[in-house]
Amino acid sequence: MQLGSGVEWATHACTVMALLHEGEGLSAEALAEYFEVPRAYLAKQLQALRRAGILASVRGKHGGYRLACPVDQITLLDIVRAIEGPQPAFRCTEIRRNGPCGLNPADCRRPCEIAAAFAGAEAAYRDALAARTLASIMLEAAMNSTPEHLAEMAAWVARRTGRAT
Amino acid sequence: MQLGSGVEWATHACTVMALLHEGEGLSAEALAEYFEVPRAYLAKQLQALRRAGILASVRGKHGGYRLACPVDQITLLDIVRAIEGPQPAFRCTEIRRNGPCGLNPADCRRPCEIAAAFAGAEAAYRDALAARTLASIMLEAAMNSTPEHLAEMAAWVARRTGRAT
Repeated sequence: MQLGSGVEWATHACTVMALLHEGEGLSAEALAEYFEVPRAYLAKQLQALRRAGILASVRGKHGGYRLACPVDQITLLDIVRAIEGPQPAFRCTEIRRNGPCGLNPADCRRPCEIAAAFAGAEAAYRDALAARTLASIMLEAAMNSTPEHLAEMAAWVARRTGRAT
Repeated sequence: MQLGSGVEWATHACTVMALLHEGEGLSAEALAEYFEVPRAYLAKQLQALRRAGILASVRGKHGGYRLACPVDQITLLDIVRAIEGPQPAFRCTEIRRNGPCGLNPADCRRPCEIAAAFAGAEAAYRDALAARTLASIMLEAAMNSTPEHLAEMAAWVARRTGRAT
């Protein structure tokens, strides 16, 4: 079971977009430069975030993407769902209906107990992701960071948006 | 993020092996017949369960596999780890070290806050899987089943092990 690196990239990219001022945006190219990751693949993740309503497009010379909501309203679950889709990790193929002792459809009105147990564990995972907002993660990161590094990030964003030279 | 169908098959197969009497085993072929799934792929999952100590081999004409421990000592987490391996779903590639504002290694002694948040959610998932034993799932299944179906399963196992004809 594996999450694609798109989830990692998308989450990190959101924390940089959180530093934008009103009306500013960052392009896929700028964010790919910031993280030294391939632009085309990152662009795909950013488009998925936009389709999910997590990002909004900003037009203009220094346009690109920005967060569509405040950082305390974007959770890790929102990002994972946008990038990986809403499908459960465990997919029940109803093998209880197969073979010499297979159940008939009338006896399968309840979900298979095995599928239900996996669904319960996935609900715990989703609940934990839904409890973590970008705000809480950025606060932790800021507390573990240095004033110099925070200033360096802010300065990069200011330059890349044309706010500073 | 997706679990292979091997996890579904392996879990179902364990619930059938739980019906074996002392000293009996079921072959990959018999279990594949029971669930109408491809023998070769199921055999691979059964071998993984054996390597993980969940199954033991039984020699002889009606040999094969049996559970190596009581059903209240086998959890869904044991099965998932045996089949899918112990790797986390979220793999941190440390992109915080990349690019113009990349952190230097000395500032990365703590795990990345994003990776830590995902690790926390995966711990919740694992805890939920670890809390579900085969015993609890089989009890639920038995309570949702009919006496006829339980008898049919037991009779199939008895025939396939040569205990009954």
